[in-house]
Amino acid sequence: MNIPKMELERRRESFQHLIREQELDGVLLAQLTSMYYLSGTMQCQFLYVPAEGDLAGLIRKNMERAGQETDIALFALKGLGRLPGVLAEAGFAPPRRLGLELDVLPASLYLRLASLFPGVELLDASNPVREVRQVKSPYELEQFAEAARQVDAMHRLVPGLLYPGKEELELAVEVEAILRRNGHQGLTRMRGFNQEMFFGHILSGESGGVPSFLDSPTGGFGPSPAQPQGSARRKIAAGEPVTVDYGGIHNGYVVDQTRLYSLGPLPAGLARAFAVALEIQDELTAMLLPGISGDEIYTRAAVIAARAGLAEYFMGYGDGQARFVGHGVGLEFNEFPVLAKGSPHVLAKNHVVALEPKFIFPGLGMVGLENTWLVTDRGAEKISITSDDHVIV
Amino acid sequence: MNIPKMELERRRESFQHLIREQELDGVLLAQLTSMYYLSGTMQCQFLYVPAEGDLAGLIRKNMERAGQETDIALFALKGLGRLPGVLAEAGFAPPRRLGLELDVLPASLYLRLASLFPGVELLDASNPVREVRQVKSPYELEQFAEAARQVDAMHRLVPGLLYPGKEELELAVEVEAILRRNGHQGLTRMRGFNQEMFFGHILSGESGGVPSFLDSPTGGFGPSPAQPQGSARRKIAAGEPVTVDYGGIHNGYVVDQTRLYSLGPLPAGLARAFAVALEIQDELTAMLLPGISGDEIYTRAAVIAARAGLAEYFMGYGDGQARFVGHGVGLEFNEFPVLAKGSPHVLAKNHVVALEPKFIFPGLGMVGLENTWLVTDRGAEKISITSDDHVIV
Repeated sequence: MNIPKMELERRRESFQHLIREQELDGVLLAQLTSMYYLSGTMQCQFLYVPAEGDLAGLIRKNMERAGQETDIALFALKGLGRLPGVLAEAGFAPPRRLGLELDVLPASLYLRLASLFPGVELLDASNPVREVRQVKSPYELEQFAEAARQVDAMHRLVPGLLYPGKEELELAVEVEAILRRNGHQGLTRMRGFNQEMFFGHILSGESGGVPSFLDSPTGGFGPSPAQPQGSARRKIAAGEPVTVDYGGIHNGYVVDQTRLYSLGPLPAGLARAFAVALEIQDELTAMLLPGISGDEIYTRAAVIAARAGLAEYFMGYGDGQARFVGHGVGLEFNEFPVLAKGSPHVLAKNHVVALEPKFIFPGLGMVGLENTWLVTDRGAEKISITSDDHVIV
Repeated sequence: MNIPKMELERRRESFQHLIREQELDGVLLAQLTSMYYLSGTMQCQFLYVPAEGDLAGLIRKNMERAGQETDIALFALKGLGRLPGVLAEAGFAPPRRLGLELDVLPASLYLRLASLFPGVELLDASNPVREVRQVKSPYELEQFAEAARQVDAMHRLVPGLLYPGKEELELAVEVEAILRRNGHQGLTRMRGFNQEMFFGHILSGESGGVPSFLDSPTGGFGPSPAQPQGSARRKIAAGEPVTVDYGGIHNGYVVDQTRLYSLGPLPAGLARAFAVALEIQDELTAMLLPGISGDEIYTRAAVIAARAGLAEYFMGYGDGQARFVGHGVGLEFNEFPVLAKGSPHVLAKNHVVALEPKFIFPGLGMVGLENTWLVTDRGAEKISITSDDHVIV
């Protein structure tokens, strides 16, 4: 479905407020998700957002499709060199301070834009682009609710799919098919260079302890060094953790969620670590109130992990250890706020965050869980609807 | 499997030859696929390639895993600011002319590197990075052969999956599961900003005529405007084209291939267009010899399409029309050489290219085919092993 017109208007107002605070005359957006959020379409090559007034979409292809998805004014852009001219013809005053998404815009495109806008100060607008998306609307909460149902429907089927000797990869294939049939779009989006991911991580036993380059506590062997994350042809055995960390995605919106399974009980040390993860989740969700910082949340989690004697396994081990415990979710898996050591982000009402307390033991695997939560004045409301329990098959 | 040591040595020599031609003192690679190609691992944050001598991998995480995948020297990089110091400690002379992948490197990282290397000339090394990968080795041809078997095994099952009223999306889900079970890594890689793709495009009837922002002749409705390409919940009917454009991927290597199916015969106009696509393939493969340019190949294809009275439907229609007919494949779906109008690329022995003559009719869909070919001194050798026939179920 198209994003409702009133929803788009609310977003534009909020974003224009942020860019006026940064004293920008306009922002030239180019990343698909950013453009979709503010216009309702991914069919633009650029989306120009002036500090005040109406937006303009610049189209390489396809004008007709863009027109079906958005009601903003659209202009054909036949070649990058015509960009300043098309903006002028569209009635925009030449910007003096122009914002760009420097966190994702390729250097070659940045340098080309610099030559097309001589004398214009090019400034980083990554933060307003990401900040505006933190506060979620009733429309967005409906999308999250559907994504929560989608991922829950998948989890209900997982126990029936597990048996000793089953390949981790086969479980992944079956789970992927279930999610796709329930409306998952397939593609998972993480913002940032090299942050590629296929669905997420379904890992068993030692796989759960194999790190990768990715900004994620888990990695997994994956099919080969050319895709060094995710499931492999490893046979699942009794008594080892099997973790399903695949989100639901509905109309682009992600509910990030992880659940723990095993064939028979887990060794006592792993079962205890899972209990500590639940304890961390309980304590942190009581803290998820407007005004608290991402740093405070992470620090509290680390204190509980240390008190349980598990500091060296919390969110990874060795140089694979991450000093974070959660992150915003929305159209991307890694939105603001970041709940990490030193994070400057402060929670506000209607932020949506995934909390993922996890313990990772080399050779043994990962235990923990992840849920997606809404920040309200009365504390955290759970968006995920699946039981938190470790499911023993 | 790890990339063989001798294979890596051959690649490094070829790449260092190219960067010396460009008078670079070294290239600092950062993109996953580029680093994997030259080192055998994706676990580095940067890979430094001096104009002569040994490479160095700079690791944020994970040193142990990187060491299992590559035999190049590895150095811990604790913070970007230490990069020049770590390179000096590794024994490299300070570069005066440093190459970077400006086509994919984010602007913020580029600007940070510029501040870390004051006085150093930063130059675009995108072309050598892409050019070195054009010429494929016997090791790489083995990977393509396996990817061809993978995608062929899938196509053998497609006729049994087709029936009137079947949803396009359900066919996609089943095909994805077959490919994954046969070793497809899931993730598909296209180089460049915003070039995201999930497997490829399985489209039926009018879906085949729906364009998108993507650099591809087809798009499809996709599940929503938030993922505006690929299959949708559209029911497949008799007498319309069903096209399966999903590649095989083995150890990262892509065989790009498209096949045409239908329930019962197609209307005469579409059947004729498919015959013209076959004719274009026949004529172009006879031209696939060292020394011919991408422009000459495209131009010949366009002439045949025009002669058949189908110019306005060749590779798209209206502003969705693309002036290309094929592209290199390898670790990414869009490698060099580009077989397009104005392309400066010239074919050489052991290039591997996908040729995809396709006709796209608004409201009716796409007919055409795609195969992956090896360029040899004696002409094109087919890497794809699936019959070219339009399969009528």
